[in-house]
Amino acid sequence: MSVRSEAHGHAASVGPSGFLDLRSTPSVGDELYALAERLFPFCRSITGNGVRQTLDVVAERIPLQVNEIPTGTAVFDWTVPKEWNIRDAYIKDAAGNRVVDFRSSNLHVVNYSAPVRCRMSMDELRPHLHSLPDRPDWIPYRTSYYKETWGFCLTHKQLESMRDAGYEVCIDSSLEPGALTYAECVLPGETAEEVLLSAHVCHPSLANDNLSGIVLLAWLGEQLQRMNHRYSYRLIFAPGTIGSIAWLANNEDKLHRIRHGLVLACLGDDGGPTYKRSRRGDALVDRAVSHVLHHRFQNASVREFSPYGYDERQYCSPGFNLPVGLLERSGYGEFPEYHTSGDNLSFIAPTALSESLDMVLTVLDVLERDRCYQNLKPKCEPQLGKRGLYDALGGENDRASLQLAMLWVLNQCDGTHSLLDIAERSEMPFEKIAWCADLLAGSELLAGLPQQ
Amino acid sequence: MSVRSEAHGHAASVGPSGFLDLRSTPSVGDELYALAERLFPFCRSITGNGVRQTLDVVAERIPLQVNEIPTGTAVFDWTVPKEWNIRDAYIKDAAGNRVVDFRSSNLHVVNYSAPVRCRMSMDELRPHLHSLPDRPDWIPYRTSYYKETWGFCLTHKQLESMRDAGYEVCIDSSLEPGALTYAECVLPGETAEEVLLSAHVCHPSLANDNLSGIVLLAWLGEQLQRMNHRYSYRLIFAPGTIGSIAWLANNEDKLHRIRHGLVLACLGDDGGPTYKRSRRGDALVDRAVSHVLHHRFQNASVREFSPYGYDERQYCSPGFNLPVGLLERSGYGEFPEYHTSGDNLSFIAPTALSESLDMVLTVLDVLERDRCYQNLKPKCEPQLGKRGLYDALGGENDRASLQLAMLWVLNQCDGTHSLLDIAERSEMPFEKIAWCADLLAGSELLAGLPQQ
Amino acid sequence: MSVRSEAHGHAASVGPSGFLDLRSTPSVGDELYALAERLFPFCRSITGNGVRQTLDVVAERIPLQVNEIPTGTAVFDWTVPKEWNIRDAYIKDAAGNRVVDFRSSNLHVVNYSAPVRCRMSMDELRPHLHSLPDRPDWIPYRTSYYKETWGFCLTHKQLESMRDAGYEVCIDSSLEPGALTYAECVLPGETAEEVLLSAHVCHPSLANDNLSGIVLLAWLGEQLQRMNHRYSYRLIFAPGTIGSIAWLANNEDKLHRIRHGLVLACLGDDGGPTYKRSRRGDALVDRAVSHVLHHRFQNASVREFSPYGYDERQYCSPGFNLPVGLLERSGYGEFPEYHTSGDNLSFIAPTALSESLDMVLTVLDVLERDRCYQNLKPKCEPQLGKRGLYDALGGENDRASLQLAMLWVLNQCDGTHSLLDIAERSEMPFEKIAWCADLLAGSELLAGLPQQ
Repeated sequence: MSVRSEAHGHAASVGPSGFLDLRSTPSVGDELYALAERLFPFCRSITGNGVRQTLDVVAERIPLQVNEIPTGTAVFDWTVPKEWNIRDAYIKDAAGNRVVDFRSSNLHVVNYSAPVRCRMSMDELRPHLHSLPDRPDWIPYRTSYYKETWGFCLTHKQLESMRDAGYEVCIDSSLEPGALTYAECVLPGETAEEVLLSAHVCHPSLANDNLSGIVLLAWLGEQLQRMNHRYSYRLIFAPGTIGSIAWLANNEDKLHRIRHGLVLACLGDDGGPTYKRSRRGDALVDRAVSHVLHHRFQNASVREFSPYGYDERQYCSPGFNLPVGLLERSGYGEFPEYHTSGDNLSFIAPTALSESLDMVLTVLDVLERDRCYQNLKPKCEPQLGKRGLYDALGGENDRASLQLAMLWVLNQCDGTHSLLDIAERSEMPFEKIAWCADLLAGSELLAGLPQQ
Repeated sequence: MSVRSEAHGHAASVGPSGFLDLRSTPSVGDELYALAERLFPFCRSITGNGVRQTLDVVAERIPLQVNEIPTGTAVFDWTVPKEWNIRDAYIKDAAGNRVVDFRSSNLHVVNYSAPVRCRMSMDELRPHLHSLPDRPDWIPYRTSYYKETWGFCLTHKQLESMRDAGYEVCIDSSLEPGALTYAECVLPGETAEEVLLSAHVCHPSLANDNLSGIVLLAWLGEQLQRMNHRYSYRLIFAPGTIGSIAWLANNEDKLHRIRHGLVLACLGDDGGPTYKRSRRGDALVDRAVSHVLHHRFQNASVREFSPYGYDERQYCSPGFNLPVGLLERSGYGEFPEYHTSGDNLSFIAPTALSESLDMVLTVLDVLERDRCYQNLKPKCEPQLGKRGLYDALGGENDRASLQLAMLWVLNQCDGTHSLLDIAERSEMPFEKIAWCADLLAGSELLAGLPQQ
Repeated sequence: MSVRSEAHGHAASVGPSGFLDLRSTPSVGDELYALAERLFPFCRSITGNGVRQTLDVVAERIPLQVNEIPTGTAVFDWTVPKEWNIRDAYIKDAAGNRVVDFRSSNLHVVNYSAPVRCRMSMDELRPHLHSLPDRPDWIPYRTSYYKETWGFCLTHKQLESMRDAGYEVCIDSSLEPGALTYAECVLPGETAEEVLLSAHVCHPSLANDNLSGIVLLAWLGEQLQRMNHRYSYRLIFAPGTIGSIAWLANNEDKLHRIRHGLVLACLGDDGGPTYKRSRRGDALVDRAVSHVLHHRFQNASVREFSPYGYDERQYCSPGFNLPVGLLERSGYGEFPEYHTSGDNLSFIAPTALSESLDMVLTVLDVLERDRCYQNLKPKCEPQLGKRGLYDALGGENDRASLQLAMLWVLNQCDGTHSLLDIAERSEMPFEKIAWCADLLAGSELLAGLPQQ
């Protein structure tokens, strides 16, 4: 019977995906956190050496292809901007003391500020100063991309203590022709079909947004190298907006391979999780994440697509409409620490990083293993007892539930319902359904159909 | 690029529809109310001079084609009935005093009553008397169409004070071959496709039901003559049921032009608003009204189609199935004053009439401006800043929301989603979405597609 | 007009189905209960004389074709098991007293127990004893199909009083080659299309599960012989699982005729009702039962399909996917008496049986009478008054509702909406809609379309 042998061929080559085995790897939270600690000090921006330093660290773990796109290059409707680098910045009072000091936090400088060096009155300086009256201890994070200007960010307490008539102001930065830097890592799987995982790398010393995404992606890449997987994985580390736009502009010929995708961001705090669906709304990745979040988290929030957010804005632009969603813990803009110095290494935690990783691994397991099977004994129920399948279910506790899962799989495997379809209809976790499908395929009651 | 030039051609010819500019026209409520006051005294019925007087007043404002359909004419399953006219009616007591007097309210006579003139005992008279025990101060409104009889309506207090043994009864009416009168006004637009707006004109001295609909329709017709509009508008003033049936019977060849339609009734009180969907349920007019009511009114009620109601019953009969819904404030039969003398000029108010008009204008704006656009830079987001589009958004307050609206329009304009589709998906008001579409089309980021 | 004459031909041959007239047949509850009393004592199992005795009683009422399938016959993935018969069983204490006695309840023996006759210590015996600590007065019902063993069921009180060191144990049963017995009754209707009604007959002295289903089915069969009906009815009395599997294996060539089906079980208590949809989920039988339950019962529960339950598991296996749902009062496993001696003749009642029968009859009426009609006056409403249709509605009370039902029927009968569609959309009971359709068809305003 050709369907059957074909199916067995496939089943053998795929099998359990290994993603679930990686969950709860001991001390992975500490490892992820340590990596975030190392990356925290770099002064990243949309261009410049902060991004290169970050990618160098990631490249210690995974084979990274780093791309440098020269300033002035047209990428769709955009132009690659000048490269920004910064050495030092401060505001000195009349006594020569640094009242605002870049060396204590790179958030003190409006990111991408043009160089400046002069003395000015407090009245002249004030429009260049940004603080948060409601959060007087936090430095805000501000940028001035695409509009050449400069400024300082400081705590409201600092601002209120500046009583001198004049100050010495210095931003020792450069804004010159150079390059935009982004990197990618492609890890081939059994098929050329791809899962796209993307993290933005342009935020300076902010931990949740988005060192959390970067370290998860680096760790995933490291593991993916060592295991068998159905899909090829494409990991993208790029500055927000202009970085993903540049990547898309340089890879239009490869986009047809992308079957599923996730933007990973804000995954180090203990809120959420929060998922924003792709523009398609019902792509397999949308269904897989919704399913996993529903079964694993009480406080999960699954939201409709909206065109505001991170790089899914570009992946989901109408000319591409890729099946890429956004996975976070607390949603961007919804936690008080967002885009302030409150989003520091104390705001993220090893346990939260580890939990987020488990969530991503569980989602990837669904994507890897979802497929259709054909029930080879579709007329009435097959007799499970004579095949020892009841015994295979083990102890009492989960037995009734696993038996029901077996019946669901047998009942629904008519070649048109995938395992995720069955998990959704039965309201049982995909893991349990897939476990039963493996068991039943082992007893030659099911045959996997070719994956599409 | 042909799509683009085509689209710009269309955009230029349509532009902002002008309907929104008409909203909140100063003192329009007073003007509408004054017109209702003038129409209030006429004794309308399904035939006769009351309808003609009413149409004469409307004809002062808009070009009205008045049709007279002779008694006995077959219109589908119906036959045009006799023409009814009335000069006077009363019940006199033994002392010769009018205890019930048509001159004080035309509701006192059962509408369409056959003539009668005789003396009769109270016992003989009683079956011909109608009152409302629960509302002892109100005169009910009753009709005897399609069954020749006669009767009087009076307050329950009046009824209880009638203690004489006999009365002189007179209804000086005529019920004779004549005609059914209805009128229409067609105001050509850019296309031959039509919006049908219909109000029933058969109720005597009742204000909300339906002088409110008549005066709104008359005012709209007046404005539509002076402005550019995409659709042709067909305004129908017809007696309920038999009037719309006669109109449909005489215009079957034109029905294919009707794209959208509304029956306007009970629009002068401050309840609701209430919308009953067309038989189709998801016609564009159903979606447009639902959208506008959802965004503008907290207490709006949108109801499924039901085959009971006003003339939408005929427009939505299965042989036509026109996309015509019913728009009201309080729903018919749901306010205590309905079909009683309580529905008088005190029950309606200039502010409510004006508010209802704004609602209708906002709906018509959606119908006029809804269309599909093509994003001309569909790959990634276009750079809005370099086109000055952020600056175009103006002050802080609505800025974030307008920016989001721009992103929605760009993201969804792939040629398959209309502006109303986008407004629904984004849960933003159509006005805002359409405003952004105009702005983006002005920057050559969007091209309008030919309207269908 | 050919549609019309065709339709009238059909209407004449179908007419009111008679199912509604059977509702509330006087003393039917007592009759059903008396039949259950007669069947209660038999020791049914999946094979053996208990089933034959039961079918003999049913055959007094309806023409029953009894089938005997020899032990060892392959039926799909299963093999017909040995035949089990039992004469006596007991546990005697040291004094020779029967402390557990089959003669007092056939539940005392694990159903399908292999024969045993020996003395054994209490320690050896204990693993063969089953009781319910939480329900110390009830004997549990246990089976040992497909795994040869033996055992006794007893009340927990009995178990606790067994203090002797040793007992004499006897199960005087036989487990030998023989046959599986099931029966069916086919009652031809106007068409060869079938309604399948199925009840399991394998439970010993348990009343609700499933004497209730058996007696309802027998009574229905008796009535169906005497009346005209559109569908042919196939009534199946078979042991659970293996019985329906055997029937399916022997009747694959007839399955294409089955249009609707119900498994009837647990219909004698006063809970529920509970309906489990067929695997299709939206089959006509699913919609019909949902509709009837929604309109007739406040506590009705309509549940999605699940592959666990009674014989609908086999009918709904993916190789057949028949439109067969499960109708019960309390759901199996959800009442404490389920599968214990608490499910006895006191647990069921004549009133509940009668009410369940009314429910089934109302569902069958929907299946029988559902069809599409064509409005023959589809343009505008027809004039009902001139045809005396308002007068046909009778007294005040239900008049407004019947008038609305007439308008719904006229409005929706465009040839694409069946009466059940109309009942669902209007949220009115099918009976009322069908009554109006008959009335309107009688006035030549509707023509029934050929049934599909």
